[in-house]
Formats: sequence, C-alpha cells, structure tokens
Amino acid sequence: MDVRKEALRLSEELGGKIEVNPKVSITNMEELSVAYTPGVAAVSSAIAENKEDVYKYTTKRNLVAVVTDGSAVLGLGNIGPEAAIPVMEGKAALFKAFADVDAVPISLDTQDVEEIISHVKAIAPSFGGINLEDISAPRCFEIERRLKEELDIPVFHDDQHGTAIVVLGALYNALKVADKKIESAKIVINGGGSAGTAIAKKMLAAGAKNVIVCDIDGMIAEDDPALDERHKDLASLTNPDNLKGDLQEAVKDADVFIGVSAPGVLKKEWIATMNEKPIIFAMANPTPEIMPDEAKEGGAFIVATGRSDFPNQINNVLAFPGIFRGALDARASDITDEMQIAAAQGIASVIPESELSVDNIIPDVFNPKVAEVVADSVHNATK
Amino acid sequence: MDVRKEALRLSEELGGKIEVNPKVSITNMEELSVAYTPGVAAVSSAIAENKEDVYKYTTKRNLVAVVTDGSAVLGLGNIGPEAAIPVMEGKAALFKAFADVDAVPISLDTQDVEEIISHVKAIAPSFGGINLEDISAPRCFEIERRLKEELDIPVFHDDQHGTAIVVLGALYNALKVADKKIESAKIVINGGGSAGTAIAKKMLAAGAKNVIVCDIDGMIAEDDPALDERHKDLASLTNPDNLKGDLQEAVKDADVFIGVSAPGVLKKEWIATMNEKPIIFAMANPTPEIMPDEAKEGGAFIVATGRSDFPNQINNVLAFPGIFRGALDARASDITDEMQIAAAQGIASVIPESELSVDNIIPDVFNPKVAEVVADSVHNATK
Repeated sequence: MDVRKEALRLSEELGGKIEVNPKVSITNMEELSVAYTPGVAAVSSAIAENKEDVYKYTTKRNLVAVVTDGSAVLGLGNIGPEAAIPVMEGKAALFKAFADVDAVPISLDTQDVEEIISHVKAIAPSFGGINLEDISAPRCFEIERRLKEELDIPVFHDDQHGTAIVVLGALYNALKVADKKIESAKIVINGGGSAGTAIAKKMLAAGAKNVIVCDIDGMIAEDDPALDERHKDLASLTNPDNLKGDLQEAVKDADVFIGVSAPGVLKKEWIATMNEKPIIFAMANPTPEIMPDEAKEGGAFIVATGRSDFPNQINNVLAFPGIFRGALDARASDITDEMQIAAAQGIASVIPESELSVDNIIPDVFNPKVAEVVADSVHNATK
Repeated sequence: MDVRKEALRLSEELGGKIEVNPKVSITNMEELSVAYTPGVAAVSSAIAENKEDVYKYTTKRNLVAVVTDGSAVLGLGNIGPEAAIPVMEGKAALFKAFADVDAVPISLDTQDVEEIISHVKAIAPSFGGINLEDISAPRCFEIERRLKEELDIPVFHDDQHGTAIVVLGALYNALKVADKKIESAKIVINGGGSAGTAIAKKMLAAGAKNVIVCDIDGMIAEDDPALDERHKDLASLTNPDNLKGDLQEAVKDADVFIGVSAPGVLKKEWIATMNEKPIIFAMANPTPEIMPDEAKEGGAFIVATGRSDFPNQINNVLAFPGIFRGALDARASDITDEMQIAAAQGIASVIPESELSVDNIIPDVFNPKVAEVVADSVHNATK
C-alpha cells in the first residue's frame, strides 16, 4: 500500500480525520431539555458560583487544543496554518485513540510570537491543556515559556519534549542492557535545533553529566568565540570539558550517539572509536543518520531509529497521549520536568527486565499498557 | 424528572456533553502511517500547493466554532467564559445530533470587541464557519458585522438571526392560516434588544412594510426627540406612520404581536383591539408575555410560544443546524439575508398545506425533515 496515496484518498473520502459527537442522547423533548435549555442553565449557574466546577461539569476536564502556526510542519517547513491541519487532526485522532483525550486542531493565522501567546491565552478557558505543535525554533521556546508562566493549565510543546521523553525512556533501557549509568555516560547529540536542545536538557535533568551537542559547525562549546547566540544557554549546560571539533571528534569515547539531524551523517568507521557497547539512536526520518545494519557492522551494540520497519522504534506516540492523560487526570497546572522524567521511566518500565534485549528497549507503539503506565507515572509525579 | 438536577448529574457523570473521535481506525502500524506520519505529509503538501484543498481533505469543511465571551448567557447574564461552556457544549451537541455538523465550544477570556474579532480571525483557518453565541448587545452587532466583512467563512450570531428565522418561518404559516399577507400586515414587536431588532429586520427583508418595535418607553419612532441612540437605525426602518404611545396603543389594529420581552406584559383585553384573527407569538421564557389559554380567551386566533408544553413551539433548534449544514455544503462565504429567508421558507414548508392549522404552524423540533429541508433551502439560496 502507498500510504501517501491512501492518506489522500481517505482524507478526501472522510473529510478529515476527526468528528465531534454528543455524549448525550437527544431524541426527545426531555433529553433536549437536559442537554440544552432549560437544564443547562443549572450547570452554567453552578460554574458561575464556583469557577472550579468547570472541571466537574464540562469537557474542559478532557479537552486539549492542538495549536500550531504552520511554521515548521513535519519536514515540510513553513507551509502555513491550512496545510498544517491534517497533521493537527492526525494528532487529535491519536490523542483519542491512545489515551481517550479529546483534542481539537487550532491552526492560527499568525506567526507573531506575541499574537500567538495572546490567542492561546484567549481560548484557554475551553481547554484543559495546550499541545503546541510544529512551531519553528526559536519562537517555540518563548511561546512555550510564556504560556507555561501565564496559564494555569498544562502547556506542552510535543516536538521538543515528546521526542526527548521517548529518547530518555529508550536510553534508560539501553543503558540497562549495556550495563552503563546515565551519570557517567558520554552522550553526543547531533542536531542543535529544538529537538536536540530538548533532548540535551532532558538528559541533564535525568542526571547525565557529560552531554555534548554537535551542530553543523561541530561541538557547541561555551568558550567558543564563534558561539551562536541561540546556543549560549545550551553551551553553559553541556560539554563540561569544552571540547572542540566536528562530529567525528565528538563521538570518540562516547557511550551514546543521538541523531536528530540528517541522513547518513554518522560514518560506520566512527562507531569503532566510541566506548564499548556503543548505543546509537539515529532518528533522522525517513532516512536515519546511519542505517541499522551498517551501524551494527561498525560495532554498534544497540540501534534505535524513528522507523517502524526496524527494531526499537522511537515514536512520539509513546509519550504525548499518556502524558496529557496523566496531567488531565491529576488536574495538573503544568507538565514539569519531574513529570516528564516520570513519563520516560514509565515508558521504559513497560518492558519487563527479563525481556530487555538489544532489539527490545522500547515498547511497541500499540502496546496498550504504555499510555496507562505513562499516565499513572505522570499523575503520581504531579505535585 | 427535574431537568436541572438531571443536567447537573449527567454533566458530572459524563464530564461534559461532547467528545472528539477519530473517523479513522488506528490499530496497527499501517493505519497509523496513513492517519499520521508519513502519510499525512502528502495531505499537507497537497494543501500547501493549493490552499482550497483544505476543504477537500480536512475537517474544516464540516467544523464550526461556537464562540462566546460569556457576556449574555441565556437569562443568566454576564457569567464569564467558563460558566458559558455548558451552553456552548450543548449547542455543539445539537449541531451534530440535528445536522451532522461538527462543532467545538470556544469560550474567550476577553469581552473587548477588537480582541474578540482578532482572536476569532486568528483561529478561523481551522473552521468552516463561526457561530457567535451569547454575546451581549450592542457589542454583538459590531463583532458580527466586522467578522462577516473580514472572514471568508460564514459567520452567524444565532441569538439574533436564529430566533428571527424561526419566527419568520412560523409567521409565514400563521399568515397563511389567517389568510393574511406579510406586505399588508401590521406587525408589532415588543422588545428592542438584539432579538427584537433582528426579528424586525428579518420581517422587513421578507417584505413586511408596517413593522413597529416597542421598547420599555413605548413605540420606537424616528421623530421622537427622546430616541435612544442605539435605536436610530431601527427607527428609520420601522414605524412608517411615526406612531407614538405604549404597547397597548401599538397593538391596536395590529395583525401580529411578537414578544421577546417579559412575562405577562400583553393584556388579554388588548387582544380584542387588534385586527381580526390576531396572531400572538409570546416568546418570553419560561413565562410568556401572555399564557396561551388567556390569549385565546382574549380572542387570539393563533398563539405560539417558546415552550414545548404548548402547541407551536418557536425553537432555535429548527434553524441553526440546517443553516450551517446548507452553508457548509454550499461552501458559502457568508450567510446572507436571502439564505436566512430561504431557511425560514424551508421551515414553513415542512408542514404540508393540508395539515396547517391554528395549532400546527411550526414543525416539531424532532421532525427529521426540518434540518434537511432548511439545508437544501440555504444551499439553493447561496450565490
């Protein structure tokens, strides 16, 4: 099957991928009086008296806005709000299918940071959470930071944190199989964009001490006079020995390579220069930084990719549905680092230790336990 | 059954009245690849190439935002965006139940006219139509006017036009039963707020020549030195003979009384002063301007109310679902006066002439033909 053709055919046939259904029956006058006037006045009055009751009586308790400005959609770039809708709808469909979260695509007709913040704040009363999606860096950082500060509902930029959480979950198990510790592992991340930055920060929050981020110009180092403005924060947190050089140099003695970069940039021969039992997460999509067979030939111990046709698929779907399920159930006002790390531990814990192996560090996307365990982990980590 | 208690119980048990469901199956990797990445990239690319394809491939073609600022919710007044959500959810449930329109409650955290316009415009890319709801006058007029001008999707303030359309539909049949013509009928509307204004304008657009609107200070007349600023426009269009006086004076020789005002304001004795076969629409809710039995005693020929426990219920549900169904199916960029009058004619036409009677001028809310006929009428009236 050609999935792209099938996606076009199905989208046209169905007119998009989601629908909004009543949960109440409305087939006679009595049911109508309960669902709408005059019955609804009692519900509105209760909330007018006690605003917190909006969670008790309305969809807000389970409704997430999937918000984009269409500026960084998949690998397609800045294609605008209309063209972004299929992705937002798909995400909304996944929210419901994987974790019974109701989600609505909101594609905004602006790419101005202040305007986006203002619009999301304005629509927030209807929603129990905001999932930011496909908003380009560096604007996405400011938008997320401000909305987290200014709203009392969870705000989560999945492109940054979703990927980072699944990577961390996979890493927990990979390190276990390789008998290594995150605190002493040398972790090289290739790609200094929003995903790479989020992965680096998540690793540090989880206890990693030696994280190095490489960009197109090589290792990001604090004392580099050519340091890019947007990398200053990252440079101060990573690369403790202020190493310089290109990716080939960076991966020497590394325990872990994490690629969120471009096809084929990791050479087979370099893997031999890594520490023993090298762990390779090559997540460029659809063509990874190195193909799994080649990585294994080069000496890789564990290989994970973003692809479903190889073992160890790193897929965001493992994280975001359960994360929002847990945050909504806990009525959390934020999705903190602690909650995100708990989610990663939850993902890792789905595979029993006895079943862990080099080709089995990440649970299957359709393992129904994943969302449940992630939701419970996030719920329990909510302050 | 106590509908208010039941509404509270059911809202709490279900957590609101709507849910968002996938229309696609997502149970294996192939289905996931079609619903989300990589398949979705083909759909986004198609829309990026031709923006109009957003209607071909996405939910936009069937998705309506039910937008409020919580400033005029039912009879509860300015109770704010959270307390308005149950009404918006109820409306969304009715949209789907009556006309297969997907609708989403959007409660805005502002009551500033310019901000509301800006936010609605910003979220418009996701939606095929905007239903404004429970926004107080006079702000609702400016908000609707500007959004109609500035957006290329239909914008419709149901509190104004929905009621007016159903009233006009009922009036068409009432006049037929009474053997009168709209062009020669004297029509008195009691209530000079947004509903009364919208009803007056709809009557004029439908051919009425002699419409008089009464407010708390009596008949609105153009040459009245005490004329309220907000009534100037209405005064120039109505009351052609510049009559003065109170409601009692106004209804003398009138063919039609339409009340959108307060309980008990129409006296039985006044009906005797009306023209022969008086038509009384007493829509104050839950207690009408005059109770149907009393009106009949006073000589009323036809009585309609907003209540389901008397014959001839005037209920918005007869209009808005079919109107949006028709506008979305026609991919209309606006819901014009012509389309609204066509909707009223559609509602009236559902009752066969042979079945018209003083107690049967308006179809039952649950008559499945209503939304279908209204949708077809609106579709056909779309330029």
